[in-house]
Parts: sequence; C-alpha cells; structure tokens
Amino acid sequence: MNLLPFLAPIRDDLEAVEQRMMAAARETYEPLSSALSAILESGGKRLRPAMVILAARLHHWEPAPVISLAAAVEMLHTATLIHDDTIDAATLRRGHATLNATWSRGATILAGDYLFARAAALAAEAKSTRVASIFANTLMTICQGELRQMLALYNWQSGYDDYYERIYSKTASLFAASCEAGAVLSQAPQQAVGSLREYGRHLGMAFQIIDDILDFTGAEEQLGKPTGSDLRQGIATLPVYYFLQSGGAESLVEAALDRSCEDRAQRDRAVRALVAAVVSSPAIEACRQEADRFARQAVADIAPWPDGPYSTALRELAAFVVARDV
Amino acid sequence: MNLLPFLAPIRDDLEAVEQRMMAAARETYEPLSSALSAILESGGKRLRPAMVILAARLHHWEPAPVISLAAAVEMLHTATLIHDDTIDAATLRRGHATLNATWSRGATILAGDYLFARAAALAAEAKSTRVASIFANTLMTICQGELRQMLALYNWQSGYDDYYERIYSKTASLFAASCEAGAVLSQAPQQAVGSLREYGRHLGMAFQIIDDILDFTGAEEQLGKPTGSDLRQGIATLPVYYFLQSGGAESLVEAALDRSCEDRAQRDRAVRALVAAVVSSPAIEACRQEADRFARQAVADIAPWPDGPYSTALRELAAFVVARDV
Repeated sequence: MNLLPFLAPIRDDLEAVEQRMMAAARETYEPLSSALSAILESGGKRLRPAMVILAARLHHWEPAPVISLAAAVEMLHTATLIHDDTIDAATLRRGHATLNATWSRGATILAGDYLFARAAALAAEAKSTRVASIFANTLMTICQGELRQMLALYNWQSGYDDYYERIYSKTASLFAASCEAGAVLSQAPQQAVGSLREYGRHLGMAFQIIDDILDFTGAEEQLGKPTGSDLRQGIATLPVYYFLQSGGAESLVEAALDRSCEDRAQRDRAVRALVAAVVSSPAIEACRQEADRFARQAVADIAPWPDGPYSTALRELAAFVVARDV
Repeated sequence: MNLLPFLAPIRDDLEAVEQRMMAAARETYEPLSSALSAILESGGKRLRPAMVILAARLHHWEPAPVISLAAAVEMLHTATLIHDDTIDAATLRRGHATLNATWSRGATILAGDYLFARAAALAAEAKSTRVASIFANTLMTICQGELRQMLALYNWQSGYDDYYERIYSKTASLFAASCEAGAVLSQAPQQAVGSLREYGRHLGMAFQIIDDILDFTGAEEQLGKPTGSDLRQGIATLPVYYFLQSGGAESLVEAALDRSCEDRAQRDRAVRALVAAVVSSPAIEACRQEADRFARQAVADIAPWPDGPYSTALRELAAFVVARDV
C-alpha cells in the first residue's frame, strides 16, 4: 500500500482495511476471485476508507465495524468503476487493463454486481441499520447521477447547476457518506455527524473539480488515459463552462461536443483544439480557485475539532486534494 | 394485480407491497421513473413478496418492515432480470419489450444498478442488520451463480451437481432468503427460521426445474419467448441431463450445444431437433417427478405449523409451483 504521508496516524487501520478487502475477494470462486484481487490491488489512494476511519477516530473508536465499513466503501467505489468502464468500453484504468478489456461484457457486468453485493454485505457487518441505509442511498444517488449524465451527453448548454449536481452525485455523495457513516459508527453527536458529512461533501466537490482540471492539464502518462477523455465521451465539465464564461469561442466547444460527428479523426482534432484553448485560457485558474473554495469550506466544517492527529489529517487531506497533480 | 386465488388471505398486504414499489419507482427522475414503473407493473406473480409475507404472518406480525422487505425482494429480483436481459441482449420478457430493447446498453446497466440500490435501501428500512446481511449475501450468491453459469456455457458434460448448484444460486437462494428474512422479522424462533428457509429453498428448486421443463414444453405465446431459449444461450438444464441418462442421442446434444457453430440457421435447426427429441423422451416426466420431490420436501419443512390461513397458503403455493404451465 502506497500510504499518503499525512495518513500515517491511521496506517494500521488502513492496513486492516486492505486485509479485509483481500479476504473478501478471496472468498469467491475463480476466476472472479483473482480478477477482484487484481482490481482492488491495482491502486487507488484509499481516500474514502481514510475518511471513514478519520471521521470515526474523532469520537468513540470501535475498530471492527469501522474497518468493515471502510472496506465496503472502497469496494462500492471499485464496483462503480467496473460498471463505468463497461459502459464506456474503457480498456485502461490507472494504467492497468480494465476487466472488460479481457472479460466479456456480460461477465464484467456480473463481476461489478457481485462487488456491489459484497460491499453491501460488508456494510451490513457494521451492524448499524442507519449505516446500511446511508450506504444504499448513496449507491442510488451515484447511479441516478451517472444515468442523468448519460442522458445529457453533448448537452453543454446545461450550465453550472447541472454540473454541480452531477459531481455531487458521482463523487461528493460517497465522500459525504464515508464521513457521515464513520461518524455514526463512532456514536458522534448528531451535529458532529452533520459537520463531518458536510466536510466530506465539500471535499468531494473539490476533488472532482481537480479531477476535471487534470483531464485538461494532466500528463497522459500520469493519468493513465488521454487528456480530454470527458470531452471524448460527450461530457462538458467546469473548465469548459469557465472557458465559455471568459469569452472562449463557442465554436470550439460545439465542434468538440458535436453529437452528430462520426468521423473519429475529426472529433479527435476538435477535442485537442478545445483542450489546448481551455488550457491557455483563464478557465483553469478559475477552476482551481473554485476547488480551493470548496476545500476551505471543508476545513471550516471541521473547525470545531481541536488539533489532534486525526483532525490534522483531515485538514491535510483537504490541502492534498487540491494540490495533487494526479 | 393478478392475484393467485390461494393468496387471498394476504391480498391487502400484497396490495401494500405494490404501492410501496410504485412509490419507490416514482421517487427518481424521468425517464428512469417511468421505465421502472413500467417494468415493475409488467407482471410477475409476486411469489417472492408472498413468501416474505406468509413466513412473517406465521409469527408476530408487524407490517411496516415486512412490506418494505417484500418490496425489496421483488425489486432485487427485477434488477437481476434487467441485467440478465442486458447480458443476453434479450428484447422480450413476459411478452413485453425489455428495457434494453429501447435504452442504450449503458443506461440499462445503470437502471439495473439503481434498482439494486433502491432494493437495498428498502431492505434497510426493515431495520434489521440480520435481514440486511441476508439480503446482501443473497445478491452475492445470485451474481456468483450467474457468473459461473456464464463461464460454463456449452459445457453440457458438467452434470447434475453443477446444475443443482446453479439453480440454487439463481433461483432457490432468493426464495430461501425471502422466507428466512420474513421469519426473522416476525421474531420466529431460530428453528422456525431454519425450517422456513428450507421450505423456500426446496420450493425454489422445484420452481426452477418447472421453469426449465417449460422452456422445452411451453407454448411460445405463453412463455413470451421461443422454446429452447436456454439451449440457444448455451445452457444445458435438467431435461437435457435426463434425456442423456435415458439413452437419448449425445449427437443431438452436441449439435445443439456446439460452441463453435456460427451458422444461426444450423444452430436453430439443431436446437429444435433436440427440443423435439427431449419432449418425446421420458426426460420430461422424470423432471416433473424431481420437481414434485422438491415440492413435497417443502411441504414437509412446514409440517410443524398447524393448518391456518397462512400455512395453508404456503402448502398451496408448493402445489401451484409444480402444477403451473406458465
């Protein structure tokens, strides 16, 4: 496990989460077992499990349910990635071959379903019906959001509200749920649960805006995928909206997000042209400031907690999320 | 709702389940909401909700959690059908167009995911971590079973054990879970929970064997799909095993389940030839006897309960399952 330095106070907990996930993957038949192990091992920064643990560490600490839930949240996240990759027919994720690059479409769908179910079973092991409910409701929000995004592809006129709702559904809802459920399991008072949920939500918004910036500015070898991949899928993100707001040429956006274009080379040229124009416009800096605002709100949400190893880690996590370049 | 006569004692409960499902479908955005409403309304005999309710009615009756769980079980079942139809690229189910006949593959996958999540949220409303756990574990079993079946397509030499494990995973596990969870919610003693779970399991095995017989003997207009559909997908079921056991020609099976055959017309002729041979062999009668044995075991499982409206309905349900022709 590649531990982020500020997560050192919960190193052992995160190690326990890894063990829990690997044990869960080993429980099923081959070749599913090996496939799930490989996907779970192939990385991710374990931010969501870290949030579950840090939120829970702020109050009454009881390891077993928290570790189960942290593993459940990461597995749920991984399951959504498997279905996303199936839907997008993506063959690379984090620089590794995706499951659907080697398995049939049907088998990949079922592997994702199995992982959802395994995650729900782990969440149930936390033995809190409130947590089971948070977990299921978050999965609903994620699926609804993905579906709305899919039904609104190429619709770049939909604007900010739609964008913020999309990134809440797809990313921030699970960040919020991780913190909320961790707090619930630690028997935090209701107000603290609410504050930690808000911290997670704001952090998730910042995280996704940075992700959307990196899809324009990132080095392809670090992203493990080509830049402009959202545009290639017909998705307009915040940099595009800020580009237009700052007087960028609509014609470039129209060309890159032209649903009717079936010429791949032409589409690719249009995407590259828009990426270049956005990167050299003030849009990227405006997006960074927006992400910073969300990260500062996250830090403000946890102001009531005095400095200590776990609250400090949560503050450093907020700083990391907006500073990262991958 | 098309109520089976012997379910009259729980008519109002089943009506409440319908309301609960329809309310859940209405909660989300269009066009998902309309699509889910249409799928949930398009039928099904509601056997799984009926089992949840009947099992719960035998002991302490508390309606709210039981109705939620009954709705959850039917929605989980429906979600698995949506993904099955996506995987098989089926365009008809119960005589209606499937979701993937009109929606894109990706949108259909997400609609199924959403329905899994909505079902899990409903199951969480039953406020029993034991039930949440049964629910998640059953979904794991179903997905694992589907995946094993997919990985063993065209492998007709695998034999009975494999067949029984497959139909347990795919059908009987959810029947068993429905009865078990209903019993848990009614605070039945542990032994009663176990007996009701066994009732469900045996009933599910009988149910699936009859389904597999009907795929050979059923009228196409009643099935809403062509006969031999399992064979067309590369799946050997009990009638094929009994056909071989009773001296049926292996060459017919080999031709119908020839993975390498890419000529559709030739495959279709081979499937029709095998269906005709199986139907006129002793295999169908042997399968019926096997289904009857399972149904009798189910009735024996609930022998401890004296006659009463709910235990009688469970016994009649067992009789119905093996007598049905659709």
